[in-house]
Amino acid sequence: MKALSKFEVISYLELHLKNWTYDGEAIKRELKFTTFVEAFSFMTSVALVAEKMEHHPDWNNVYNKVQISLNTHSAKGITQLDFDLAKEIDKIYKHFE
Amino acid sequence: MKALSKFEVISYLELHLKNWTYDGEAIKRELKFTTFVEAFSFMTSVALVAEKMEHHPDWNNVYNKVQISLNTHSAKGITQLDFDLAKEIDKIYKHFE
Amino acid sequence: MKALSKFEVISYLELHLKNWTYDGEAIKRELKFTTFVEAFSFMTSVALVAEKMEHHPDWNNVYNKVQISLNTHSAKGITQLDFDLAKEIDKIYKHFE
Amino acid sequence: MKALSKFEVISYLELHLKNWTYDGEAIKRELKFTTFVEAFSFMTSVALVAEKMEHHPDWNNVYNKVQISLNTHSAKGITQLDFDLAKEIDKIYKHFE
Repeated sequence: MKALSKFEVISYLELHLKNWTYDGEAIKRELKFTTFVEAFSFMTSVALVAEKMEHHPDWNNVYNKVQISLNTHSAKGITQLDFDLAKEIDKIYKHFE
Repeated sequence: MKALSKFEVISYLELHLKNWTYDGEAIKRELKFTTFVEAFSFMTSVALVAEKMEHHPDWNNVYNKVQISLNTHSAKGITQLDFDLAKEIDKIYKHFE
Repeated sequence: MKALSKFEVISYLELHLKNWTYDGEAIKRELKFTTFVEAFSFMTSVALVAEKMEHHPDWNNVYNKVQISLNTHSAKGITQLDFDLAKEIDKIYKHFE
Repeated sequence: MKALSKFEVISYLELHLKNWTYDGEAIKRELKFTTFVEAFSFMTSVALVAEKMEHHPDWNNVYNKVQISLNTHSAKGITQLDFDLAKEIDKIYKHFE
C-alpha cells in the first residue's frame, strides 16, 4: 500500500467521504450516538470489520461520542485501506443515525 | 417478581409484544440480520442492557440469525422483567431492520 | 473444503481437541464462566476470530454458560475449518479458566 | 458523589491502585494486550461493567493498546466511583496479563 499525496487525500474525501476531515496525518470523523449502549454496539461492528481487514482504527470513546482517526502506519500516510475502512464505518453508522 | 398466568402473558404479548410468541415456558422471538457483523453488534447492545437489568436472555446465534428465549428462573415463569427486556430488545432491533 | 470421515473426526478430536465431542453432525463444547460479563467477553473474542475466518459458530448462551457447535454447512460435515475454529476457541477460553 | 482532594486521590492510588497515575484531572492507566482481539474483548467486559455502574471511561484504543482515563464530570473531580471502576478494570485485565 502506497501513501497518497495530500491532494489525492483531499480530493477523495470531497468526493466519497464528506464527513471526514484530514489534518495532514490522519483522516478523522467524530460520531455521536444517543447512548453509550449504541456507541459501543457501533464500536463492536467496526471492530469486527477492522479485524477482518487487518486494519485498525485509532479511536476514542467518551459516553455517547466516538472519535476515529485513520492512517496506515506501515506506509507513513493515508492509503486506500484507510478509505475502505472509513467507508465501512460510514455504512455502519447509518444504522445509528 | 411474581410469575404471571398464561392468560396474562398472552394478553400482554398481543398488546405490547406482537413479534413474540409464548410456548408455555418462555417468550420467544427470532430475529434476522443482513450479516453476522450486524447480528453480533445487536447482541452486544442486548448484552449491555441485560447485564444492567441483571436479567439475561437464553439465546442462540447462527450467522445472521438470533433466537431469543426469555423467562424468569427464580419465579419459574414469565414476569414483568421478561416483558421489560423484550421491549428493550425490540427497540434495539429497530436499528437493524 | 472436504467433509472428513467419522473416523477422521474422532481421531482428530482425541489428539488435538480433547474437550470437544462429536455427535455425528457437529463437534461441540460447553464452556462455563464465572459471570455473564466473562461469558460475553469470551463470545466477543470468538466473534472477531470467526468473522475473520468467515466461519461462524452455532452457539447458545445462558448467563455464564456457552454451548458451541461447529460444522461446515457447505461441505455437509466437519472440515479442517471446524478444527481450526475449535482450536482458536480453546485458546481464547484459556484466558477465562 | 463528592470530589476528593488531591491528597486523598494520591493516597488511595498508592494503597489500592498502584498501576494508576493521577494528573490532577483524571486517574489513568495504559494497558497492553497481545492482539487487537484481546484488547477489544477486554473493552467489552469493561463496557458491560461501566454501563451497569452508569459510570463510563474516557478511553482510547490503537491496535493492542488501551488508554483509560477516569473522572466524575458531575463532581468535577475524582470520586469513589472512579476508584470502583478502576478496581473492576484491574480485575478484568488480570485475565489478559
